[in-house]
Amino acid sequence: MPSEFSHTRQVEFHETDMAGIVHFANFFRWMESCETAFYRSLGVPLISFVPGQVVGWPRVNVSCAYREPLRFNDTFVVRLLVKKLTTRSVTYVFQFRKDGTLCATGEVTAVCVTADAQGAMVARPIPADIRALLQEAPESAYL
Amino acid sequence: MPSEFSHTRQVEFHETDMAGIVHFANFFRWMESCETAFYRSLGVPLISFVPGQVVGWPRVNVSCAYREPLRFNDTFVVRLLVKKLTTRSVTYVFQFRKDGTLCATGEVTAVCVTADAQGAMVARPIPADIRALLQEAPESAYL
Amino acid sequence: MPSEFSHTRQVEFHETDMAGIVHFANFFRWMESCETAFYRSLGVPLISFVPGQVVGWPRVNVSCAYREPLRFNDTFVVRLLVKKLTTRSVTYVFQFRKDGTLCATGEVTAVCVTADAQGAMVARPIPADIRALLQEAPESAYL
Amino acid sequence: MPSEFSHTRQVEFHETDMAGIVHFANFFRWMESCETAFYRSLGVPLISFVPGQVVGWPRVNVSCAYREPLRFNDTFVVRLLVKKLTTRSVTYVFQFRKDGTLCATGEVTAVCVTADAQGAMVARPIPADIRALLQEAPESAYL
Repeated sequence: MPSEFSHTRQVEFHETDMAGIVHFANFFRWMESCETAFYRSLGVPLISFVPGQVVGWPRVNVSCAYREPLRFNDTFVVRLLVKKLTTRSVTYVFQFRKDGTLCATGEVTAVCVTADAQGAMVARPIPADIRALLQEAPESAYL
Repeated sequence: MPSEFSHTRQVEFHETDMAGIVHFANFFRWMESCETAFYRSLGVPLISFVPGQVVGWPRVNVSCAYREPLRFNDTFVVRLLVKKLTTRSVTYVFQFRKDGTLCATGEVTAVCVTADAQGAMVARPIPADIRALLQEAPESAYL
Repeated sequence: MPSEFSHTRQVEFHETDMAGIVHFANFFRWMESCETAFYRSLGVPLISFVPGQVVGWPRVNVSCAYREPLRFNDTFVVRLLVKKLTTRSVTYVFQFRKDGTLCATGEVTAVCVTADAQGAMVARPIPADIRALLQEAPESAYL
Repeated sequence: MPSEFSHTRQVEFHETDMAGIVHFANFFRWMESCETAFYRSLGVPLISFVPGQVVGWPRVNVSCAYREPLRFNDTFVVRLLVKKLTTRSVTYVFQFRKDGTLCATGEVTAVCVTADAQGAMVARPIPADIRALLQEAPESAYL
């Protein structure tokens, strides 16, 4: 039952802005892509379109604190920690590090939804098989 | 039966890159948004999810030639011209001008598709009511 | 001395994702573009490259709470409120409304920086002429 | 003297649009990122800010032909071929394949520029050390 996951990326040119650094909104895309890779590592898709199954995890609260900028071609690590699990939501913390230095910390709370007959999103409990794959990270993991 | 359409935008900060100019891929987003606004001006949606109706216009060929860069806060005009209409496709030309100076010229060919019972895209003729709204721009319009 | 600003946008196709709604990261781009338009309305550029002058406002903390999704072609209002002014930072609140319904609320804290001789970002107090243009919104403005 | 380069990516969620497929403009970002990785493999940066040195490769002509859509989580290969080298420009062809199937073909012509004393872009010949690293791909490479 993993409570964390890490992967490594490099800053792409189109992710920079005219200030010469990564545009701040891209960190949220990277959080989501790390979450996707985490689910892939668990053998379950982040999104499923199988009728009657989970269809998605819309975000309800997200935040990011920026300490050091990232620049074109920088190699950095995105680390996901499962902060909190409820019956219907997951909260993740994301740490962005370059050469060991913490550059940014993000947090995302996503709720589990399925689609009703009209295709609208309806909240639902996290499926038991997915919930069984997750556990909250211990306090010590954040150090 | 309009054969052209124009609208005005301003360059947003996130559209720039570290070279201090608009990232070239954004011109394709602007072409599509101008096409959307053109359809809105005609009173028809670019995309429809009504069952049995047109669902979209996937792009099959796109190109752009860049002459002058655009920069943060620049005001520019995007002008769409209907270049070619066939029974199943439309080709648009887009001209990007700042203070009258041509900065870039784009071209997009999109084909009309609908969705089959499985949700896959299937080519279809352009609906007669939409086709009746469009006509090819005369040669003189490109000057 | 304005403490708030609003402008209206429409959701563009490229801002949607496969869930059929606006991708959540785009709200942060919209916050920034509203901030840019606010500064433009004040007659001062958000970013200046005049040597010795303000060069930018990097974000140090950002967040967004999502209530209702926005979809392709939706018209919505972005409203900026100056929440807090210090000598070196500004905190804005952003409200996103569609037909009067609150869809999302964001918050951004940006710090004023200039560039040193090597081009690195260095924190600096907000210039007096810019600070004189801003004031904190009253509690009643958030209702 | 390499004339081609390949790397593998996976489609990220934010790269999709409401049609359920990758938004077409992202292929241009992927072309550029492949070009960046190609240069990294050659041991030279795509962009240099060393005074008096190459600063960039603005695009003058780009195009893409789309055959098959890519979807969320798809693994695909981007293959770069050096199509044409002149004293001042490079033209690349990009092939996007999923499980061996060609999904799209792109082409990019970029010109070599440096910055003048005012920071404006000025065309310049490709530096000899970079030119020496490149050669045009043979006809057979496109099959």
